[in-house]
Amino acid sequence: MKIITHKLALIGFGNVGQGLATIIADKSAQLEAFGMKVQIAAVSDPIKGSIYNPNGLDAELLLKTVQSGITLDTLTAPYTGWSAKRTIEEADVDTVVELAYTDLKTGEPALTHMETALRRGLNVITTNKGPIALHYDRLMKLAKENNAHLRVEGTVMSGTPPLLFGLEHLVAAGITKIEGILNGTTNYIITRMMEGKSYSEALRETQELGYAEADPAGDVEGYDAAAKVVILANLLMKQSLKMEDVDREGITKLTPEDIANAKEDNECVKLIGRIESSSEGCKAEVRPLRIPLSHPLSSIQGATNAITYTTDILGEVTLIGTGAGRMETGYAIIADLIAIHKEHARSASGQVEKEVRL
Amino acid sequence: MKIITHKLALIGFGNVGQGLATIIADKSAQLEAFGMKVQIAAVSDPIKGSIYNPNGLDAELLLKTVQSGITLDTLTAPYTGWSAKRTIEEADVDTVVELAYTDLKTGEPALTHMETALRRGLNVITTNKGPIALHYDRLMKLAKENNAHLRVEGTVMSGTPPLLFGLEHLVAAGITKIEGILNGTTNYIITRMMEGKSYSEALRETQELGYAEADPAGDVEGYDAAAKVVILANLLMKQSLKMEDVDREGITKLTPEDIANAKEDNECVKLIGRIESSSEGCKAEVRPLRIPLSHPLSSIQGATNAITYTTDILGEVTLIGTGAGRMETGYAIIADLIAIHKEHARSASGQVEKEVRL
Repeated sequence: MKIITHKLALIGFGNVGQGLATIIADKSAQLEAFGMKVQIAAVSDPIKGSIYNPNGLDAELLLKTVQSGITLDTLTAPYTGWSAKRTIEEADVDTVVELAYTDLKTGEPALTHMETALRRGLNVITTNKGPIALHYDRLMKLAKENNAHLRVEGTVMSGTPPLLFGLEHLVAAGITKIEGILNGTTNYIITRMMEGKSYSEALRETQELGYAEADPAGDVEGYDAAAKVVILANLLMKQSLKMEDVDREGITKLTPEDIANAKEDNECVKLIGRIESSSEGCKAEVRPLRIPLSHPLSSIQGATNAITYTTDILGEVTLIGTGAGRMETGYAIIADLIAIHKEHARSASGQVEKEVRL
Repeated sequence: MKIITHKLALIGFGNVGQGLATIIADKSAQLEAFGMKVQIAAVSDPIKGSIYNPNGLDAELLLKTVQSGITLDTLTAPYTGWSAKRTIEEADVDTVVELAYTDLKTGEPALTHMETALRRGLNVITTNKGPIALHYDRLMKLAKENNAHLRVEGTVMSGTPPLLFGLEHLVAAGITKIEGILNGTTNYIITRMMEGKSYSEALRETQELGYAEADPAGDVEGYDAAAKVVILANLLMKQSLKMEDVDREGITKLTPEDIANAKEDNECVKLIGRIESSSEGCKAEVRPLRIPLSHPLSSIQGATNAITYTTDILGEVTLIGTGAGRMETGYAIIADLIAIHKEHARSASGQVEKEVRL
């Protein structure tokens, strides 16, 4: 088997970037089994520093350096100190892994990073929900125009691959509904409330554990889950939803009485993101709903995520997995790289057929 | 996009073959979206009759005919009445879909059918557990020697694709353990026992519903689940297990007291198939086990199946779906065809690289 090398530029080297670097350092044999070698050639991070070597960097050395609190600029390399912009514009790589901070309002700065990379014909892999929930159509169009790949597996359920799974294995079965527990923080809070805690006690606990931000609105008001609903609808159900199309209600008004009432009826409460398509159109929502204890989604505890796809042919198929984590989200990028790797081989075959016909 | 036509010979035209024909008749648009057209060219069934047209048969007409109780031999076609053997040896098709009856002792007659097809260089897709649990290595070797594909998705969880999912999305994460509810009939029986029925009452009910065979040993003694354990271990965990390597105990000795004791501890009983690999080797078993109600496998009701993969990088990932059904198992064959279709494009690209190098 021919081994193809994939050269990456990492824009951002926080938890996810370091998780990815750890997998690249530790799992090269598993990746070679897929016919691929993965090499980090550039890293640009506003705090951890920036470094670029066209011949590739040592992933383990990058990790040791930042984990010792030293910036990457201090390492010996042909180029250091490049901004994200310069790295994306000038580094000789195949794929930009966009891991910069973004918000759900503008998608910046990740959006501009991705557009710049795609215009250069570079593949883009991201775990950033913002630009994908806001501008997926526009980014995909740009990717196609420039013969590049855009892959976004890590935007939903971290390393558990609900997008690739849906696209590759369920689309042909006819997906009519998707519903899931898409936000780990709120599911943790509700799980603790089911155990008897009040909303504010449970929220404080997630903040102490580092699950919830100091300003928890993105999670508890359902914005994060709504962004994932938009991504699932647009990628797997051919919709063109925007954030404002999602009928959204968070968990802040959930009371111990709501929980107790559900329990009495052998049900539980979950913050459910849901998209349902019918002849009348597509309905998208995020809200706390009661689920019978016999349904797989009722068993989802703590920070775990889960998605139930309803299909014409297979009925319900449920995928359950971790919703966050350093290595887990890093793995989402590996899953995307494997998908690009396979696609690369396929498009090469497309070229052949053309040549044969000439 | 170029559309590639896949020509099939169906060996067996019972529930699964008819489910497949229904999908081919109804979902051609969805299949074209993958760049493929699926055509049934030959059917050979000892009861439903046999028919072959090198230019393809009308799937809807095949279905109407057998559903009216008429044999396929009565239709107008270039060839009728061919045996399975002659169909596999002589029909001009790309892929043999092997759906004949088999047992778990010899794997025959499906085993011989598959070997004959692979020797001719035809792809083989099957939903038959027998030959795959007994002789997967030998069949795969034959497939490779003859540059053909062997695909077996429907042998586990019908149309829900735990094999493709594991191979394509989880192997790189390092699968260390697989455990699941792999037999719908026994899970139905246990679900009813959890609701207060005795074992014999619950068994009778599954027989009346058509879930369990008149001789239920294959299900209730755990042979069916053990075959699936062997298939999962050999395909996803690089083992070479045989049926006798599985430490097997069925559900026939399960008492209402066992169920009640589990309930008291907030647990439930499930017939679990499990493979765990460690530095000391691989341990495979099928037996009734107690599962805490907080685990996703505890929520699996009735005839549903589920598999939890434990991986190095992602922790636990669980896939839940239907374990049986006419259309569902038919869809497994479509999933395999899509996989062959993609692989076909990939191997075409491999040939190119060779040509370029010459």
